[in-house]
Amino acid sequence: MVDKPAVVDAYKVEGKVDYDQFARTYGLKLIDGELEKRIEKYAGPLHFLLKRRIYYAQREMGWLLDEYEKGNKFYIYTGRAPSHEMHVGHLLPFVMAKWLQDKFRAEVYIQIPDEEKFLAKDAPEPDAMKSLAMDNVLDIIALGFKPGLTKVFLDTEYAKTMYKQAVRVSKHITFSTMQAAFGFGNDSNIGKIFYTSMQAVPAFLKSVQEGKNVPCLIPLAIDQDVHFRVARDVIGKLGYYKPASIYTKFLPSLDGLAKMSSSDPIGAVYLNDDPETVKKKIGKAFTGQQATAELQRKHGGDPDKCVVCQYYRYFFEPNDAKLKKILDGERSGTLLAGEHKAHLAEAINAFLKAHRAKRERAREKLDKFMMRD
Amino acid sequence: MVDKPAVVDAYKVEGKVDYDQFARTYGLKLIDGELEKRIEKYAGPLHFLLKRRIYYAQREMGWLLDEYEKGNKFYIYTGRAPSHEMHVGHLLPFVMAKWLQDKFRAEVYIQIPDEEKFLAKDAPEPDAMKSLAMDNVLDIIALGFKPGLTKVFLDTEYAKTMYKQAVRVSKHITFSTMQAAFGFGNDSNIGKIFYTSMQAVPAFLKSVQEGKNVPCLIPLAIDQDVHFRVARDVIGKLGYYKPASIYTKFLPSLDGLAKMSSSDPIGAVYLNDDPETVKKKIGKAFTGQQATAELQRKHGGDPDKCVVCQYYRYFFEPNDAKLKKILDGERSGTLLAGEHKAHLAEAINAFLKAHRAKRERAREKLDKFMMRD
Repeated sequence: MVDKPAVVDAYKVEGKVDYDQFARTYGLKLIDGELEKRIEKYAGPLHFLLKRRIYYAQREMGWLLDEYEKGNKFYIYTGRAPSHEMHVGHLLPFVMAKWLQDKFRAEVYIQIPDEEKFLAKDAPEPDAMKSLAMDNVLDIIALGFKPGLTKVFLDTEYAKTMYKQAVRVSKHITFSTMQAAFGFGNDSNIGKIFYTSMQAVPAFLKSVQEGKNVPCLIPLAIDQDVHFRVARDVIGKLGYYKPASIYTKFLPSLDGLAKMSSSDPIGAVYLNDDPETVKKKIGKAFTGQQATAELQRKHGGDPDKCVVCQYYRYFFEPNDAKLKKILDGERSGTLLAGEHKAHLAEAINAFLKAHRAKRERAREKLDKFMMRD
Repeated sequence: MVDKPAVVDAYKVEGKVDYDQFARTYGLKLIDGELEKRIEKYAGPLHFLLKRRIYYAQREMGWLLDEYEKGNKFYIYTGRAPSHEMHVGHLLPFVMAKWLQDKFRAEVYIQIPDEEKFLAKDAPEPDAMKSLAMDNVLDIIALGFKPGLTKVFLDTEYAKTMYKQAVRVSKHITFSTMQAAFGFGNDSNIGKIFYTSMQAVPAFLKSVQEGKNVPCLIPLAIDQDVHFRVARDVIGKLGYYKPASIYTKFLPSLDGLAKMSSSDPIGAVYLNDDPETVKKKIGKAFTGQQATAELQRKHGGDPDKCVVCQYYRYFFEPNDAKLKKILDGERSGTLLAGEHKAHLAEAINAFLKAHRAKRERAREKLDKFMMRD
């Protein structure tokens, strides 16, 4: 099988993504030892997502830390476009945002663009998506965001604030730019053509609200970078700091493809999946192990290709020593697929059980997080 | 001098407009005696703007009156995109809306799209336009709109309501459509490409708010029709009634060209012009009279070309018998330019003085009119 060139844009990720190539193409810097040290100076030991280079690239982090050293604190902006229930991979930007909030006592803005997938895909319109969007919000704040330091908003509920700023952005972006950056054509609807202006707003909104420039850091998956490639210069033209950003790779799909997709239920573990479903899904996960136990014991496997290993790496084994043991077991052939998968399913189910309990508790304090006009 | 073909689009009106041609091109029906009678049945004697065919064309008025007869009352939607002070010509849609409100006890929605001219022209951004926009609102409600039956809103202040509905509209409009209808190109900014969705919303917003279909009537100048040509079918697709509309011609510019333009101060009488300025401007108005008083007395003039006559016809002489006397005087040559203009300047100044007094009184009750999220 020959890999097709990967597609990574705002509304489609397909094929095997070459992350380093992506970084070179779009001028991202790889996260390196020097940056690690600068972050550790303030944050203490790095989050494993950074250490393991799952967050692997960045823009303007040097500048952001320079400002921080001068006493110019940053805020964090990330978001989630609702269209389906959330799966584990969707949590990656929020896990990082939460860690940064804790370590830098940073305010976090969380945009829930409840119009985006309606405009760009086949999701229901905002009113019909409301309950789903609020379920997504619960999954997010269940991660432990601090009330008072975290502001969550649905675009349509916060549109009095957002639209006026989006209008300012939109004046500086032409249809040509959207064609080139997003691949839009003459048959694209004018809502999705405009939408990128809404996604740009939270990257400078705190500066508008405070009446002075506040640096912004965006943790995001690489497919969302296109919005900010388009918006960065505009934000600068409007007189605000261009945002800094750090980029996560995609949690692989259970079948071993690039990205866990929420529109492909087999490839994704949903936060609502019951224990049996998780066991079944992980049972079918791609490991790349040899055809028989005997061969596997003899030749071993490849942890980079084994989705079960990657799940531990991305999410379910924060402890580096324990992770190493798992990856070594896969590599050496001592860890066979059945046991490997059973353990992961247990870890996922333990996480999901705790997560759902936190989500129920989050429900009670929801109002402390929501910004509405 | 050969007339160039007229340009009539949402953001430019140039040349001598052929109104009948416009109606034929876009499928408007001319207002006729039969429709007059149907309106008079409910409204009593027609407003002179209708009688004189300054409001000359319509869409769906037959349907609107059918619904009215069934007890299905309509509301009225019109608006004003702020960019400059208002001039007399800008009042035409509001004079008609006010008359319709009185005669049909209809609710009136007045949209003030404070982002439109920023996106489509060189007007300041919404925050910087706020005070000008509110001055425009005062000029509008000074015409006598009923509080409680009139809802005025700035797009950016009412965006929580508007944006969600505009998103629904925008999904059904492609860039191709905007290219064809508005002449937009690849270099057009994505804000003005989206904007037409915002202008469509008030044509069905009352139906959304009431949870049932309410007919809508839009009095507008012909250059604004393009927005609704694009939106009509979309509004239908969303399950709402397509709006009915009646179309006014443009008050001629003082120099005799097609449309009084607010960006050309010499061609327009502003609502803020002081008496001396009005006298000077009307003194320079185009009448088309003969080169000398003697020749004028001998040959007479053409009331259709005389801007002074047209000002009386459009605005300053509601009484048909008195208007006839003025037009006859112009035609026969008994009414010379000096006297003709001096009288008009007096009439305008009397109107403006009263208008400004009403505007001051409107200031106190402004809050009764404004809708904000």
